[in-house]
Amino acid sequence: MFDASERLGRQISFMLELDKMKNLYRQTYVLHEDRKENDAEHSWHIAILAFMLAEYSNEPVDVLRVVKMTLLHDVVEIDAGDTYCYDKEGYKSKAEREENAARRIFGLLPEDQQQEYYTLWREFEDGSSPEARFAAVLDRIQPLLLNYTKGGISWKEHGIFKDQVMERNRQCSDASKVLGDVIMSIINDAEEQGMLRSR
Amino acid sequence: MFDASERLGRQISFMLELDKMKNLYRQTYVLHEDRKENDAEHSWHIAILAFMLAEYSNEPVDVLRVVKMTLLHDVVEIDAGDTYCYDKEGYKSKAEREENAARRIFGLLPEDQQQEYYTLWREFEDGSSPEARFAAVLDRIQPLLLNYTKGGISWKEHGIFKDQVMERNRQCSDASKVLGDVIMSIINDAEEQGMLRSR
Repeated sequence: MFDASERLGRQISFMLELDKMKNLYRQTYVLHEDRKENDAEHSWHIAILAFMLAEYSNEPVDVLRVVKMTLLHDVVEIDAGDTYCYDKEGYKSKAEREENAARRIFGLLPEDQQQEYYTLWREFEDGSSPEARFAAVLDRIQPLLLNYTKGGISWKEHGIFKDQVMERNRQCSDASKVLGDVIMSIINDAEEQGMLRSR
Repeated sequence: MFDASERLGRQISFMLELDKMKNLYRQTYVLHEDRKENDAEHSWHIAILAFMLAEYSNEPVDVLRVVKMTLLHDVVEIDAGDTYCYDKEGYKSKAEREENAARRIFGLLPEDQQQEYYTLWREFEDGSSPEARFAAVLDRIQPLLLNYTKGGISWKEHGIFKDQVMERNRQCSDASKVLGDVIMSIINDAEEQGMLRSR
């Protein structure tokens, strides 16, 4: 075993635990391989959007807080799994499963960081700050852009209707008018191109 | 096609181009699958270290700048490929290949972001700021910890000697005494456990 302080030892344990994010697969496909995207890749991608697109938040945001949220928002899936956003049954137990996961996983850290990261995660889930609301838009627009660019592959696989995607993304404009408009424009075009079903 | 301003269109092009990071594989293995880690996953992992371990930087750092650097430092590999750190031949042409890549890839962005991200990348490569020097330590310690935790798999595959790893990591203490010490302790233990060759 190697030498480290108790504090650093806990931080390293947390970091190693997070490696599991690399084999938690989502419903979205990566663009250049025939496989789904994992949580680590997704989180990396939206963390870049967090600072690159921060100018489009309706409210001023602390960019570092948004970035931390995007990097950590999915770690609860290590225990709770990924719940596909159009899976109504899965959503019923999602909150409790994720709360327990957050307690365990952030609990690996030293007390101060445990509290800080749990608070960021909770805030993201509740949409209770400008940072959380903006991060939620990024969490929506990234899979939308990938899916659209790949011909709607994941929507087609699940037979998703346009109004379901509209409904899920309706609130984006409250946090970012600019990104909300782009999302609606993408959805409309996706329907026209037959990537989404109409009714 | 969907509607977006020219500026947002460029930002989206950059974001989509970056998806290639998800199939650029490194020499390090992920812990829980039998496959190598890609650049997106690696960047996500060290971005978390950037804020979680910032307290260990010898010099004060602007944490958001470190995080941006870690998220973007490897995008040049989209064009230039990954050069294994113990590949002497590959290192000869690395600088030129990466400079051209940085020009092209950051060139997709609006002018102001092009300059900002290019500067961050250049700074990282040159180790010319406290943020760059600290980010370099994170870029070292993450694969080291994964490799060590997985029994030295990648070192064994390439028959790496302890002194090579020592040499590559010697400067870490200049940027972080605490992390530099842990790195040395890991290397010593890795040799004792037969993960690294002695001479």
